[in-house]
Amino acid sequence: MMPQLAVTTILEHPRAKDTNMVNAGDMNGSGNLMDFLDEPFPDVGTYEDFHTIDWLREKSRDTDRHRKITSKSKESIWEFIKSLLDAWSGWVVMLKIGLLAGTLAGVIDLAVDWMTDLKEGVCLSAFWYSHEQCCWTSNETTFEDRGKCPQWQKWSELLVNQSEGASAYILNYFLYIMWALCFAFLAVSLVRVFAPYACGSGIPEIKTILSGFIIRGYLGKWTLLIKTVTLVLVVSSGLSLGKEGPLVHVACCCGNFFSSLFSKYSKNEGKRREVLSAAAAAGVSVAFGAPIGGVLFSLEEVSYYFPLKTLWRSFFAALVAAFTLRSINPFGNSRLVLFYVEYHTPWYMAELFPFILLGVFGGLWGTLFIRCNIAWCRRRKTTKLGKYPVLEVIVVTAITAIIAYPNPYTRRSTSELISELFNDCGALESSQLCDYINDPNMTRPVDDIPDRPAGPGVYTAMWQLALALIFKIIITIFTFGMKIPSGLFIPSMAVGAMAGRMVGIGVEQVAYHHHDWIIFRNWCRPGADCVTPGLYAMVGAAACLGGVTRMTVSLVVIMFELTGGLEYIVPLMAAAVTSKWVADAFGKEGIYEAHIHLNGYPFLDVKDEFTHRTLATDVMRPRRGEPALSVLTQDSMTVEDVETLIKETDYNGFPVVVSKDSERLIGFAQRRELILAIKNARQRQDGVVSNSIVHFTEDPPELPPNSPHPLKLRRILNLSPFTVTDHTPMETVVDIFRKLGLRQCLVTRSGRLLGIITKKDVLRHMAQMANQDPESIMFN
Amino acid sequence: MMPQLAVTTILEHPRAKDTNMVNAGDMNGSGNLMDFLDEPFPDVGTYEDFHTIDWLREKSRDTDRHRKITSKSKESIWEFIKSLLDAWSGWVVMLKIGLLAGTLAGVIDLAVDWMTDLKEGVCLSAFWYSHEQCCWTSNETTFEDRGKCPQWQKWSELLVNQSEGASAYILNYFLYIMWALCFAFLAVSLVRVFAPYACGSGIPEIKTILSGFIIRGYLGKWTLLIKTVTLVLVVSSGLSLGKEGPLVHVACCCGNFFSSLFSKYSKNEGKRREVLSAAAAAGVSVAFGAPIGGVLFSLEEVSYYFPLKTLWRSFFAALVAAFTLRSINPFGNSRLVLFYVEYHTPWYMAELFPFILLGVFGGLWGTLFIRCNIAWCRRRKTTKLGKYPVLEVIVVTAITAIIAYPNPYTRRSTSELISELFNDCGALESSQLCDYINDPNMTRPVDDIPDRPAGPGVYTAMWQLALALIFKIIITIFTFGMKIPSGLFIPSMAVGAMAGRMVGIGVEQVAYHHHDWIIFRNWCRPGADCVTPGLYAMVGAAACLGGVTRMTVSLVVIMFELTGGLEYIVPLMAAAVTSKWVADAFGKEGIYEAHIHLNGYPFLDVKDEFTHRTLATDVMRPRRGEPALSVLTQDSMTVEDVETLIKETDYNGFPVVVSKDSERLIGFAQRRELILAIKNARQRQDGVVSNSIVHFTEDPPELPPNSPHPLKLRRILNLSPFTVTDHTPMETVVDIFRKLGLRQCLVTRSGRLLGIITKKDVLRHMAQMANQDPESIMFN
Repeated sequence: MMPQLAVTTILEHPRAKDTNMVNAGDMNGSGNLMDFLDEPFPDVGTYEDFHTIDWLREKSRDTDRHRKITSKSKESIWEFIKSLLDAWSGWVVMLKIGLLAGTLAGVIDLAVDWMTDLKEGVCLSAFWYSHEQCCWTSNETTFEDRGKCPQWQKWSELLVNQSEGASAYILNYFLYIMWALCFAFLAVSLVRVFAPYACGSGIPEIKTILSGFIIRGYLGKWTLLIKTVTLVLVVSSGLSLGKEGPLVHVACCCGNFFSSLFSKYSKNEGKRREVLSAAAAAGVSVAFGAPIGGVLFSLEEVSYYFPLKTLWRSFFAALVAAFTLRSINPFGNSRLVLFYVEYHTPWYMAELFPFILLGVFGGLWGTLFIRCNIAWCRRRKTTKLGKYPVLEVIVVTAITAIIAYPNPYTRRSTSELISELFNDCGALESSQLCDYINDPNMTRPVDDIPDRPAGPGVYTAMWQLALALIFKIIITIFTFGMKIPSGLFIPSMAVGAMAGRMVGIGVEQVAYHHHDWIIFRNWCRPGADCVTPGLYAMVGAAACLGGVTRMTVSLVVIMFELTGGLEYIVPLMAAAVTSKWVADAFGKEGIYEAHIHLNGYPFLDVKDEFTHRTLATDVMRPRRGEPALSVLTQDSMTVEDVETLIKETDYNGFPVVVSKDSERLIGFAQRRELILAIKNARQRQDGVVSNSIVHFTEDPPELPPNSPHPLKLRRILNLSPFTVTDHTPMETVVDIFRKLGLRQCLVTRSGRLLGIITKKDVLRHMAQMANQDPESIMFN
Repeated sequence: MMPQLAVTTILEHPRAKDTNMVNAGDMNGSGNLMDFLDEPFPDVGTYEDFHTIDWLREKSRDTDRHRKITSKSKESIWEFIKSLLDAWSGWVVMLKIGLLAGTLAGVIDLAVDWMTDLKEGVCLSAFWYSHEQCCWTSNETTFEDRGKCPQWQKWSELLVNQSEGASAYILNYFLYIMWALCFAFLAVSLVRVFAPYACGSGIPEIKTILSGFIIRGYLGKWTLLIKTVTLVLVVSSGLSLGKEGPLVHVACCCGNFFSSLFSKYSKNEGKRREVLSAAAAAGVSVAFGAPIGGVLFSLEEVSYYFPLKTLWRSFFAALVAAFTLRSINPFGNSRLVLFYVEYHTPWYMAELFPFILLGVFGGLWGTLFIRCNIAWCRRRKTTKLGKYPVLEVIVVTAITAIIAYPNPYTRRSTSELISELFNDCGALESSQLCDYINDPNMTRPVDDIPDRPAGPGVYTAMWQLALALIFKIIITIFTFGMKIPSGLFIPSMAVGAMAGRMVGIGVEQVAYHHHDWIIFRNWCRPGADCVTPGLYAMVGAAACLGGVTRMTVSLVVIMFELTGGLEYIVPLMAAAVTSKWVADAFGKEGIYEAHIHLNGYPFLDVKDEFTHRTLATDVMRPRRGEPALSVLTQDSMTVEDVETLIKETDYNGFPVVVSKDSERLIGFAQRRELILAIKNARQRQDGVVSNSIVHFTEDPPELPPNSPHPLKLRRILNLSPFTVTDHTPMETVVDIFRKLGLRQCLVTRSGRLLGIITKKDVLRHMAQMANQDPESIMFN
């Protein structure tokens, strides 16, 4: 009995009631009728735009909410059911996110397919069919006859009734460019007019938002709609960009939309971010058809606060999204994954050398891309260039279309290209890349073809691939960051896949022609199928993607889900690790972090290590020589004093001390809540005038007679502000900010308040220690 | 230039030197020759056995170390190479752990195979061959002739030259029991004599250790050796236990061994735990052949502090371990996974109902098992039973062997049983479970056999399975927790697989005989292969494992890696979620948490939510009416006073205040370091006597002339103790303890020290609020 007794004692403890006040917000106060502010007033507990949230406070508010529901649920069956529904709402939100994200991804895939083909021709039997769908319905169903199906007509056939010849070529070329320009113009106009936040990949901003920053409208309904539509347009226009990154943004918009339907999530910025983390996982899940990879991507790359509950829910959302997409079946092959491959031959130890070379290439490409792209984006921000976003998009689209059309490897959509590069050459493959000279005596089964000498098609393909590679490298640098939705995964993978395939074919031919060399003798006898160029393409793609984004585990897992076997994990890992190391040697930042820094978002990366020897006292404000910290006293300031202080400073909150002399800390009051509380009291509470005393104590101070009614503001006082001593090493302070998601932290020495450290101060200090410009951190 | 200038200013800041003192330990002090304690003395910064580590301090010490190496690396090339080696040592440790864990797992697999078969017979051509290996070398290589290979002789054949008949059966039965008893006796004796920590699955203790607790010897070399040997013995003895959990312990022992070779890890308990987390991943990776599942298991189930760096390294260790195991190839089939399955038919929506039923069964089994097992283990701890561990093991082994032998499903090893239950019945399958009545006109390919009516073998198998299921359920409750290595994964999976297979066969037969029922009409036409009983077994296994351990994502991912396809993830997830919900309805604790509580380890679970309304002031000590907090003053106590305080109390540390009157907090001193410092000073520092003044200030206090030399202890003072205000809600305090891994936290009100909260206080309070006995938390 003893423990239960003790519980009762604690619950009846008089101070326990104070919790209400600590967690200001939506609860009813102690019942003093005169004390108006004990009732909730609007907007308390919300944040302003471009401000940082306080994770501890959000968590505390959620616990309060949960406690209220739990205690209510014992009152009646209806309340009990309501509490059950509340507990289930998380899963319901996940289900809805999965369904919507999967559906949107399917619709985007179908629309992109159709519009990409529209640039070249149209289906006569039904104009809304893509080339492939058009030919399914016709009688010629084999892959080789695809080009010959009569329902599908190129523009030249339709308009001037010519399918071959120079004039038909020029007409098709011209219309291709026109369609591309048309799509791109429409996209950039829509983005500019309706939803400026719909541009870019969105991942840097989502990372920032998930770390606890408010950007209103970034995940809004308009952004969702416009991003979906314009994504289809820009991908179809043939620009060098992918839909994978923006799909994460789209999924997060879905997450935000559904979380706004449930007060549990809409009223709590911390809980909302749990939903958004899961939505990001669903986004990657549908982008690649890799649910586990999606969850790990969200965990490794995007999320900030990822409790185990979120892990499980993310997984659920990712699975639902993946299955929804599979039911829509946009690729028409019942495959979940974007690039399905099946290789039949193992890899050999000696091949690790070219794989590692590809890793080095990926790392170098990552570095080059990040440096050039950031330089170009900085130029766009600071020069006149930024004033003509539409023109920029039009020019880049025109250049892309003009250069891309003549080369078959750049004319087709990038994902088709990657798909072809990943493919192993089977016996029935008709592609140029598989134009090998066959042994006429061959009688083996189709899936185990020995290495063969390359035919003329392969050599042509090599040249075209080399040109396409150079073009892609250059154009992608200029494309990423324009005012249109643009993802980076697919172009990066394409660069890697092209390089990888060329290396693969090279190794294959060397091995075929020189199978007596020592390194080949053991594993590559004549007539054996020992080199799979498609695998090299895949390894190259992983390396380049790793170099740009610095993903590691999630990248390997995504690739593992694509190949569906552990067999090729070692090559992929070797390349991914090499690429990360090479790229890290030139700079620790991935492309997303680089863009976060470029935009000056207050993002405290969990991956950065802070190793300097500074102390809290070096970072806190006020610095030496600066005027003293602006503080409130617990019971000696008037309403007017407080209002003046608020007007004269722009701090987000003020420490409350016993008196200006003793400077012993009592609590912390938020600026926003002070303003709201005073405004409210002046409007609705009698007797509160400019020279009313503001007190934060439990009981009003003793006042001379005839003095005006005092204003009690204890309710908005945070009685448990976070403090550290001035001797605390900054590495500990950084750790505390990261792990507890603080907004500010007070610095004391033997109980006396010395100063304050905000998240912005921490970020500026970190930038300073890394020899960067601390003024680049713009928000708080 | 401006930012760089500022950096220099900060680094030259006089206070920056104080960091040395904040992070007491291995650095040289400020150079005052008289101040002996500024030199390092032994054992500072280590912990006593059964104590909790301070994560913040460990992290801080590691940063110091890192900083020292970085600054040294600029001095010479040799130092630079040393710093590179240091940076690489993490990967080297992972590689070694992977190699050793994989090798040990392979050796254990081979030895278990051989010794399990030894209970039934011996190979004449080479006694060290298992039954299967023996028959490989003989000419009869097909599976059906396995029983007939002449080199393999049952004991009765060898001893009395009889292979059939009652006397031969009895002889074999008797020898089976004798071998089992012999193995079990040897195992329990080895554990008792050499390594008492080698018993159990080890996962509860590893969870506790990873959360920051010291149990010396738990991961030692002797434990590693004895656990490996006895694991082989107990698994071979046929007891109802598995090797998967203990393999995690074995892998962690490997991790501990290799981390003790590198000072980076051996001298820092925090860094060591990063290695152990990765080792746990490697353990699961080799246990199931599921590297990704292993990493997620470590993340979800075992680890406490899991930074992203650890994620990537764990993945590396898990992969290396898996590939090492595959190179050893103990199963002789080049498969990485423990239970490889390949199903050929999809599942149908209607099947979700039996799958969810299996989930309910799994949840109920989990609850039943945890309750009964904990009750039995508590009985063992509190009654005479615990005094006869050897006898207990002998009795349980005898009962197991006597009951298991007559039933073919319990006689064989449990993993073989699970393997058979998971298998789909192909055309060549000779097992009793596949004794269906074949349609003589069947001409289909072998992997697409339609549903058929069950033959007599299947009905016999059903009875035997039912008996085996009941037996397994009961005996496992008594087996887990005995003083031998014992894992729980395999018995749990076996229970689920048996139940699942029976349900599967039931559904299959109902569907076959009643394919005109509405629910079957759409998907189960006559002649179609619509129900896969093996899939039901797999779903049941996942449900039961989930019910006992409450794993979710990692469980599904492990199962996904076993089947290698996303196809069956939905059934598995449905069952796993149902099972978790059902089990959670009866109690939130999984078996590992239950054992942690039973043993009273100070484990602060990240999954528990603290939702009570108590404040820090309710939890801190001293409580009301208790004597005041024992504190040190900064410059007014003598050496003798301090020694008396240390002698009279058993606290692990003492707050240091300005004076007893003002109670303003200066810092915190650890008991262990106080004792060491005073002992050291008395031995080695002249003039320090009992009435020397101890001072923690920078400068010695002004003393009357002729007073003895004062003792400066600022070096061991933690100048940045963690403080919260008395109004801080306990949910925040719990969060801080969890996320920052604190050992204690001081409670203040407006700068005055009020009390202290230790991790033990937090755990006791949580136990109290959950109506449990707070005295069950034993360590701090």
